[in-house]
Amino acid sequence: MEKDCKPTIDVGLRGVVVASTHISKVDGAAGKLIYRGYLAKDLAKSSTYEEIVFLLLYEKLPDIDELTGFRKQLASERRLPDSIIDILRMLPADAQPMDVLQTAIAALASDDPDAKQADREAYLRMAVRLVARLATVVASWHRIRKGREVIPPREDLGHAANFLYMLSGEVPDDDLSRFFDVCLVLHAEHSFNASTFTARQIASTRAHMYSSIVGAIGSLSGELHGGANVRVMEMLMKIGAVDQVDAYVQQELDAGRVIFGLGHAVYQVDDPRAHILAPMSKVLGERMGQPQWYEISTALEKAGKAAFKARKGVDIFVNVDFYSASLYYAMGIEVDLFTPVFAVSRIAGWTAHVLEERFGEAASKPALYRPKSLYTGDYCGPDECVYIPVDDR
Amino acid sequence: MEKDCKPTIDVGLRGVVVASTHISKVDGAAGKLIYRGYLAKDLAKSSTYEEIVFLLLYEKLPDIDELTGFRKQLASERRLPDSIIDILRMLPADAQPMDVLQTAIAALASDDPDAKQADREAYLRMAVRLVARLATVVASWHRIRKGREVIPPREDLGHAANFLYMLSGEVPDDDLSRFFDVCLVLHAEHSFNASTFTARQIASTRAHMYSSIVGAIGSLSGELHGGANVRVMEMLMKIGAVDQVDAYVQQELDAGRVIFGLGHAVYQVDDPRAHILAPMSKVLGERMGQPQWYEISTALEKAGKAAFKARKGVDIFVNVDFYSASLYYAMGIEVDLFTPVFAVSRIAGWTAHVLEERFGEAASKPALYRPKSLYTGDYCGPDECVYIPVDDR
Repeated sequence: MEKDCKPTIDVGLRGVVVASTHISKVDGAAGKLIYRGYLAKDLAKSSTYEEIVFLLLYEKLPDIDELTGFRKQLASERRLPDSIIDILRMLPADAQPMDVLQTAIAALASDDPDAKQADREAYLRMAVRLVARLATVVASWHRIRKGREVIPPREDLGHAANFLYMLSGEVPDDDLSRFFDVCLVLHAEHSFNASTFTARQIASTRAHMYSSIVGAIGSLSGELHGGANVRVMEMLMKIGAVDQVDAYVQQELDAGRVIFGLGHAVYQVDDPRAHILAPMSKVLGERMGQPQWYEISTALEKAGKAAFKARKGVDIFVNVDFYSASLYYAMGIEVDLFTPVFAVSRIAGWTAHVLEERFGEAASKPALYRPKSLYTGDYCGPDECVYIPVDDR
Repeated sequence: MEKDCKPTIDVGLRGVVVASTHISKVDGAAGKLIYRGYLAKDLAKSSTYEEIVFLLLYEKLPDIDELTGFRKQLASERRLPDSIIDILRMLPADAQPMDVLQTAIAALASDDPDAKQADREAYLRMAVRLVARLATVVASWHRIRKGREVIPPREDLGHAANFLYMLSGEVPDDDLSRFFDVCLVLHAEHSFNASTFTARQIASTRAHMYSSIVGAIGSLSGELHGGANVRVMEMLMKIGAVDQVDAYVQQELDAGRVIFGLGHAVYQVDDPRAHILAPMSKVLGERMGQPQWYEISTALEKAGKAAFKARKGVDIFVNVDFYSASLYYAMGIEVDLFTPVFAVSRIAGWTAHVLEERFGEAASKPALYRPKSLYTGDYCGPDECVYIPVDDR
């Protein structure tokens, strides 16, 4: 699985195995993504986000009674305390949604008595609350920044449908709900990606669940991670039409830039999630009278892959962001909410990883992540500098 | 510096070199801490926190004009926007101070236009603002939770004196200011500890400065990291008197527990910072008419070291938290502010590391930190599980 000997510096930790996990496996060579034993593509076909959250947190798929109970529990935890809505109202309307999300989730810690507890049951309750409320924060902020009324959650709707309802004020039809639910299922978990590693790393100091999740939100906001789907959509809009795709690809590669949504740190084939998202993007784009984003995407995938092969002799593959961009857009989700929507789903994986870091097998590892660095400061040669008082400098 | 070959899992990343850095070096064997070429103990003797912040951010000690200008710049950035004070007022009085700090720093991002910029100058401006304002957040929150008036910062005071002034409403005398300044100097930076690694890891996704710092605050809040000084003080209070020390040590070790403040992931000798903090704790404790906390500390150091040697045949050493606890207490700082006070200083190191991660030599490394994990889930044997729809389960 990895080389036996390592170079002096493990740049970016690629290839360094930092922990064992029961939560998920990304088989980059085979293009398989597995959540606790189950292929994500099988789960996407038949299950709902609520089932996946249960699977990730409780380590098994629920039976019908468990699922019914869990749906109710999640739904009952959706509503935000008034103080959080008040805090959202104090932030400027042009605030970046991921900054707002960080602020609100950090503030929610002060509202949750379980944040002062250190047992597994308290962590599970916080996990469920976070899954339920993070979606409400994203939707509420969007309403507030637009000067519209905040729409309280509806307990009779599923997680996916309720989120779209809180965002737009309209209950989505079955197709739209189902498509969004599949998106949530497919983004829920992806092993030790940057934000999940951040969450685990913070948890390893025994900081509480909220601290970990707030850090993970920060990590996800980066354009190399969760911000990538935003860059994909901006790119599609910049290209604007299918007949501009070839010129765009050549121009970007000439300038040494990347094509957003192509390439991944782990997959050596197409991201299995992309193959499920793409057909939904097509169907929904057509239904919305905006087929061009999907069309540009497919043309870009083809042209980008061919250009990489021709110029660099290497294959490059689509990642999850490539088709989620046009799909979210067709759902009427604003571009700067794409990354928060990623968080609306990934909160399930993050909380599962925090639980594992604190209470799982990994808990037997020696305390916190504390890597080494190589000091290459050469300010005064090999010796230490002699301190000279400021008046004599 | 490290072994050539590694085990299958690099637990906790101990011994894994993740990046090169110019910022600081911790020589655990020699007990040396070096900030950009200078021994921290030399800096503690003669310089001020403002000099150290300048050194860490600008890579050299300032001359007198630079220092004067930088002091002014820092002082002018101390005041919080009204909206942040309003947000603090909305949090419950019993909120954990580190949670409040995370919330307020996350909220400050929405107030800083530089958070939407990606150039080095914008990052430096954010760094200075964060160093200036983090202290104001901690002091303001303390006043608010006690139902007292918030004390605006004074531009004519140094960073250390101003913080104590904002906390208590009284301008500290020269001794107290100087002691606290030394504490700030000694806690400003410590290489790739857990919170700094969190900050760098978040920055590696190209998330902005605030996202990184908010994550680092979360990491510092853990009891295995910045929370350790709180645990030390709670321990001293539990022991209560010098003649109880021996019994406490035996009882804790019998129960397989640790003595807080003894032992460190990196140092194999006493933490060089502890030797500077200890005499200040003695002097200030006596002045405050509470010499017992220092006395219990020294007795505990002696008894703890002897007991470890006798029972396990190993030497154990005091770390930075061991004497900072009694010192902060003698300064009149409440115990649950010890960790926020750590952050008041460490913000300098964090911001320097974010700058280096984004714009330093490390910027040439391949993108973000993305480690591997070993999937050990065995839910359905070696094969994937077969998905069964919920109604058939």
